[in-house]
Order: sequence, then C-alpha cells, then structure tokens
Amino acid sequence: MKSYRKELWFTTKTRRAFLNITPTIEECLKESAIQEGLLLCNAMHITSSVFINDDEAGLHRDFERFLEKLAPEKPYDQYDHNGYEDNADAHLKRTIMGREVVVAVTEGKLDFGPWEQIFYGEFDGMRSKRVLVKIVGE
Amino acid sequence: MKSYRKELWFTTKTRRAFLNITPTIEECLKESAIQEGLLLCNAMHITSSVFINDDEAGLHRDFERFLEKLAPEKPYDQYDHNGYEDNADAHLKRTIMGREVVVAVTEGKLDFGPWEQIFYGEFDGMRSKRVLVKIVGE
Amino acid sequence: MKSYRKELWFTTKTRRAFLNITPTIEECLKESAIQEGLLLCNAMHITSSVFINDDEAGLHRDFERFLEKLAPEKPYDQYDHNGYEDNADAHLKRTIMGREVVVAVTEGKLDFGPWEQIFYGEFDGMRSKRVLVKIVGE
Repeated sequence: MKSYRKELWFTTKTRRAFLNITPTIEECLKESAIQEGLLLCNAMHITSSVFINDDEAGLHRDFERFLEKLAPEKPYDQYDHNGYEDNADAHLKRTIMGREVVVAVTEGKLDFGPWEQIFYGEFDGMRSKRVLVKIVGE
Repeated sequence: MKSYRKELWFTTKTRRAFLNITPTIEECLKESAIQEGLLLCNAMHITSSVFINDDEAGLHRDFERFLEKLAPEKPYDQYDHNGYEDNADAHLKRTIMGREVVVAVTEGKLDFGPWEQIFYGEFDGMRSKRVLVKIVGE
Repeated sequence: MKSYRKELWFTTKTRRAFLNITPTIEECLKESAIQEGLLLCNAMHITSSVFINDDEAGLHRDFERFLEKLAPEKPYDQYDHNGYEDNADAHLKRTIMGREVVVAVTEGKLDFGPWEQIFYGEFDGMRSKRVLVKIVGE
C-alpha cells in the first residue's frame, strides 16, 4: 500500500469564495503515482469546505444566497459563538457544504462523472488556510 | 490490496425519487470478494445524492417537504443557474443530502447498524444517470 | 494492509447532545498501530451524526438553534414519519450534520488542522446507541 499527503494553502481576497481546485488535485494524484485507491480531500479549518459540484458562476451565486438564507452572516450578535470572533455563520455554512470529499482513483485518474469538479469553499477568508490531500492505494 | 469498481445506472420516472440500492451494493461487495476495507458509493452527477437513512415512506415524504422548504424547485427564475436549465434546486438539494457515503467492510459484509440503508436520491431525474461503487481492501 | 474495527457506545441524558469523542478515537488509532491510512468514523444509527467542528459551547448552542430552525422537533404531527415514533426531526437534523467523517492517518496520528475535533451528535438520545470506528492502512 502506498500513501501520499499534501497540504494546499489558500488565501482568498473576500470573506466568502469558491475555488475550483480540481487541476491541483489532479497534479497531486499524478505526483502520488497511485493507480487504484481512494483520495480524501478535506478542509483543515472548521470554517471552510471541500465539496463537489458544478463550475458555473450562476450556481455559485445561488449557493451564496442559499447559505445566507440558512445561516446569515449578520447580525453578528444572533450567534452565541460570536463576540471575540464574528464567524459563527461560517461554521454553519461549512456544515451544510461539507468538510470533505472521498473520490475513487481508477487507472491513475479521479473517477468522475461528466460535470464533477472539486471546490474549496471559503466562508471566513482573507487569511491563510489549508486543505489536506491524502491518497491511499497502490 | 484489491480494488473493485462498478457503475450503476438509474432512470427515475419522476423528477425526484429515493431508491433503496442496498441490495445492489451488497451484490457488488460479494462480487468484489473483499473481506476487509472501505466501500465508497457516490453519485456521479451533481444533481443527485447517495445517502444513508431509513427505508420508511413517511420519512421520505418528510425529506421531500424539508428539501422543498430549504431549496424550492419553483419559481425557476429565483435561481441564477436557471435559464437554459431549470435544475438549480436539484444542485442545492443534493448538497443537503450529500454526494457520497463511505461504509466499512467487515468480514465481507457492509458493517451497518440495525436500520442503515443506502439510498440513491434523485433530484433531476427522468434521464439516465450513474452511481459509482468503489471498494478497496483485501 | 491492516484493518481495525471498534464500536463505541453512548447513552446521552438529553434528547440532543454533542460529545467530543476525539480522545477515544485517538485511543482507537493507537490500539490499531496503523501509521498510514484512512479512518472512518460513522454513526450506526440514523438519528445521530459524527461530524468535525469546534469544541466551543457557544457554537454548540448556535448549532442547536440552527437545527431547530431548519427541522423543528415540534409539533410532532408536522411529520409523516411520526405517530408510532416522534423522531422525524432527528433524521433530518442528522442529515444536515452528516453521518460520517473520513480522516487521514499520518505517522500514526489523526492528520488534523489546528481546531478540528470529532463530535458525536445525538438527536434522539436517552438510549444506548453506537458509533463505528474502522481504520484501514498499514
């Protein structure tokens, strides 16, 4: 059994952002030389997500509105977590979008359907944060 | 390390549907002859889900109402993603229900609690769509 | 390839509770002697969750309010699943919080960011329920 590990670092310019990280994950997989196995990609911070969906700007605006409706950023004092911090909404938004994805690795490639793309979802950005890529197989 | 891969195809008669796919996944596991490891089952499309919950028709109607409250299908023009397509709500519903499940394989069986069943959740159906089963272990 | 399996049992004193189970999972990992691989931790019941977030009491109260807003416990008769049972809301809450986490194992440790902690999320407690830990690697 082989295993591979890499940390990816991101600093978004806005509080919230969606970044398509599929090409970077594909490079990791190539570097690992793993042909068959499972790839785990997870946010290492608890106010961001890794998820799979469509790379379409309209849909990303829909996600933003959807998340703001379910877990609005403001007013900050609606959340017990806020006070010293102001990011309670980011913890909730990340919960809806998910911490991690597990992807099948087949013949050295991400075993994806036609439109699957991996995104980093940032909900409390403008600082340096990490994503973990771990690949296990042979 | 052994690995096994299979695509399952589904065409639902309605836009939304929940299908219990546990027996099919159990057949895949038997076919793989893997005794110890991890099984990944994921939707290959971004408007459908694979999730684990109860096989109870009342609960499935509750899920339908719950998802329609959080991410209503209509009016279509409330979503920026719609226009050429009308399935923005399906992308959001799938996000709540999840893309994938990872299940432990122990002594050649799905290592499940008493009521766990695997469902395919379709949110934009009436066309042929795929689920991936990948099993890794030995 | 090595594999390790353990069931953890929990009985909460309240219908809903969040328990930090990270130390127990770390003991399992030590017991497994696995250095590199993947750790799956999942609720074996369909009205509870395993998720990763912050160990902060204010945030946990925010989660409680957030979940009650999206899937309120009462009135019980708003749900088709209820009647013989009264836990439809717990099935929905667990769906939002997630069934499982997959964690990278690196050099014999949970490969975590600075604030990641694993929680058992109970939504229909006051009875004995189980969590599965499965570790695969070498």
